[in-house]
Amino acid sequence: MKDLDTDTLGGLAQQIFDGVRALSRDTAGVSRPAFSSVETETLAWLADFARQNGLHVTEDAGRNLLFSLPQDANATRWTLIGSHVDSVPMGGNYDGLAGVAAGLIVLIRAARSGRRFRKPVKCIAMRGEESAWFGACYLGSKMLTGQLPADELAATHKGDDRPLSAHLQDLGIDTAPLAAHLPICDLSRIDEYLELHIEQGPLLVERDIPAAVVSGIRGNFRHRKIRCIGQAGHSGAVPRAYRHDPVLAFAELMHRLDSTWSHLQQTGDDLVLTSGIVGTDPASHAIARIPDELMFSLDIRSQDAEVLNQMRRYLRAQMDDISRSRGVRFDTGSEVAVAPALMDATIIAGLQDAMQQATGDTFTMASGGGHDAAIFAQAGIPAGMVFVRNRNGSHNPDEAMEIDDFLVGTAVLSTYLEEAP
Amino acid sequence: MKDLDTDTLGGLAQQIFDGVRALSRDTAGVSRPAFSSVETETLAWLADFARQNGLHVTEDAGRNLLFSLPQDANATRWTLIGSHVDSVPMGGNYDGLAGVAAGLIVLIRAARSGRRFRKPVKCIAMRGEESAWFGACYLGSKMLTGQLPADELAATHKGDDRPLSAHLQDLGIDTAPLAAHLPICDLSRIDEYLELHIEQGPLLVERDIPAAVVSGIRGNFRHRKIRCIGQAGHSGAVPRAYRHDPVLAFAELMHRLDSTWSHLQQTGDDLVLTSGIVGTDPASHAIARIPDELMFSLDIRSQDAEVLNQMRRYLRAQMDDISRSRGVRFDTGSEVAVAPALMDATIIAGLQDAMQQATGDTFTMASGGGHDAAIFAQAGIPAGMVFVRNRNGSHNPDEAMEIDDFLVGTAVLSTYLEEAP
Repeated sequence: MKDLDTDTLGGLAQQIFDGVRALSRDTAGVSRPAFSSVETETLAWLADFARQNGLHVTEDAGRNLLFSLPQDANATRWTLIGSHVDSVPMGGNYDGLAGVAAGLIVLIRAARSGRRFRKPVKCIAMRGEESAWFGACYLGSKMLTGQLPADELAATHKGDDRPLSAHLQDLGIDTAPLAAHLPICDLSRIDEYLELHIEQGPLLVERDIPAAVVSGIRGNFRHRKIRCIGQAGHSGAVPRAYRHDPVLAFAELMHRLDSTWSHLQQTGDDLVLTSGIVGTDPASHAIARIPDELMFSLDIRSQDAEVLNQMRRYLRAQMDDISRSRGVRFDTGSEVAVAPALMDATIIAGLQDAMQQATGDTFTMASGGGHDAAIFAQAGIPAGMVFVRNRNGSHNPDEAMEIDDFLVGTAVLSTYLEEAP
Repeated sequence: MKDLDTDTLGGLAQQIFDGVRALSRDTAGVSRPAFSSVETETLAWLADFARQNGLHVTEDAGRNLLFSLPQDANATRWTLIGSHVDSVPMGGNYDGLAGVAAGLIVLIRAARSGRRFRKPVKCIAMRGEESAWFGACYLGSKMLTGQLPADELAATHKGDDRPLSAHLQDLGIDTAPLAAHLPICDLSRIDEYLELHIEQGPLLVERDIPAAVVSGIRGNFRHRKIRCIGQAGHSGAVPRAYRHDPVLAFAELMHRLDSTWSHLQQTGDDLVLTSGIVGTDPASHAIARIPDELMFSLDIRSQDAEVLNQMRRYLRAQMDDISRSRGVRFDTGSEVAVAPALMDATIIAGLQDAMQQATGDTFTMASGGGHDAAIFAQAGIPAGMVFVRNRNGSHNPDEAMEIDDFLVGTAVLSTYLEEAP
């Protein structure tokens, strides 16, 4: 037996992407709702494809699929590799599916070439990662690891308003252990978790690098709606000294945050910050009126929990300072926070070595978006990720990953998982 | 005959304000639409009140009312003093009406006390100053002075969608001279125009001063809708160097404008600036998405045309600079500009003297809002204004002018107009 060539591997990948795309096509892009019949059909298609390619297939208690080489079907411990098969509404075909396809390609390559893994490998195709359907994300991996909060089990579907628990029961999934926060798989058997995912930002495109090792998944803290409350007035008739202008207060706050971001970046700290929603009140705003209020959202992310704490304190201090100097008030509402998830240092090093071997170069970066890998890491399972270059971001029909780049990512995983030839 | 005491003058003022309020009350505040039957009823009420108090009343070609002492009815030249009687929808009772009431009080005081004016005085109660009804302002004084643009004569009423010309014809006003931009009164007979108005900002309240002489009316330039166009992206996944964030670009622009405003103010220049409308697109914005676009309005005012030009150039240069540094684009749409209107220097000096005599002190300030006085000034008639302290701004039901302050303002006008006793 000899190793599969790039054309063969690329053909297999294309079969997977085309096959799944065909059964989940929407008016724009694809729609594979979490825990839906389309998701079930996707898994069934993948099971057929895997069996046709000599893999062993089983279903777990969350109705996710597990694929392995036949000889590893009864292994007692394994490396888990995979991702999710659901998508956002009218999303792209690669967010999630690429990670499952990578796992399948790694297994099929080993099966056909006779190359051996250092230890048993299973590929998982998970359900329900996208928050678009039930308002909460990573549902499938939270279920597996016993981390699904009660309010998420009760969260209603945006289409039919029925709770997640009802949708799970429709699929024949026992919700009792989920409610008791019990893992529904034996976590002690999973040595490590690996996930390939398309990059959701432009870094690899901008730097012209096909793939990257992920150092960690940025945590964040967010304010959905901060109100900056000032005082309305005639735009022409209120002198500067008597203004309490929430727009200028917001501009000053964002300018200070932006300057600090620039500074932290120059000193090597990891940070991104975004105010994605900004607005004066359409019911009362006017060109010739100083608005009484401006509302804005804030999303601040870092791989480093200490940087997040530092920014949290800085934000508070600047709001206090600007409130005093401008006679405005910030009502921040509640903060929602997600802790950063560092990838395992040994796995990072191993993937970096593998990337060096497979491509002659290595590149490591943080993940801005969240991924199932963070949930496994939080459950104590060493985790690692590989990013693949992708244009136009994710969660939209214009995701554009090249198969050649995808094969670089899978080669990194194969090299990491296989014994030296 | 002896001069009227404060109680008598205050009683007369209260009669005017109460009488007109009663016939124009709305669910909140008062509504006296421009060129409406309520406006006509208001003028009829004022005519009755004036005749009962010994004044001569005539109507002009714009169906405005002119009041005078009987002996000045046939004067060949006069000082004109007055304001408008219409209001915004659900507005306050004093914006406009206070200036007409002041003219009437000045005349009644002279009639009853036997004190003489230095030269004949006529009081005018004008129609149609507020832009709320036809989208354009100062209609009455533009008609009088031949300055009504064709598009404003064709502008439609926000309630019935009929053009201003039709509303004028309903009142029996000949629109032919208006269309020909001919003055409908003999401007050569008006020596000067004086107007008392409530202050629309907080300056006199904050400084605890009952009234002020107005130095000029701020001009402005405005952009209704500036689009700052950047590039959308995942809030967590796009590093700083690859962002084209329109929110941070806007924040930087406003911060620079604000800093320059502070600087100009410290060097004694007159300026106010406001972004009253700000917003990301509700159809696409999200907490976790760098927005592709932010839109905002800009309203920049100064008494000094050169300061406006300076700010216009500065705005353009900053937008260019920020566009380059952040990879965004500003689409400013069209600019609408109104030239500043300086009050006449001799009248300002005369009113300052009068205020010194009447109150023992004097205070001079710019007007942020526009007034009919600017239209007379632009028609070449020397103009002057007196502001009266007022809480809560104008154009809302909470306007709060004290009668005592109003009497200070009228005393300034009487002192200016009368011969030394």
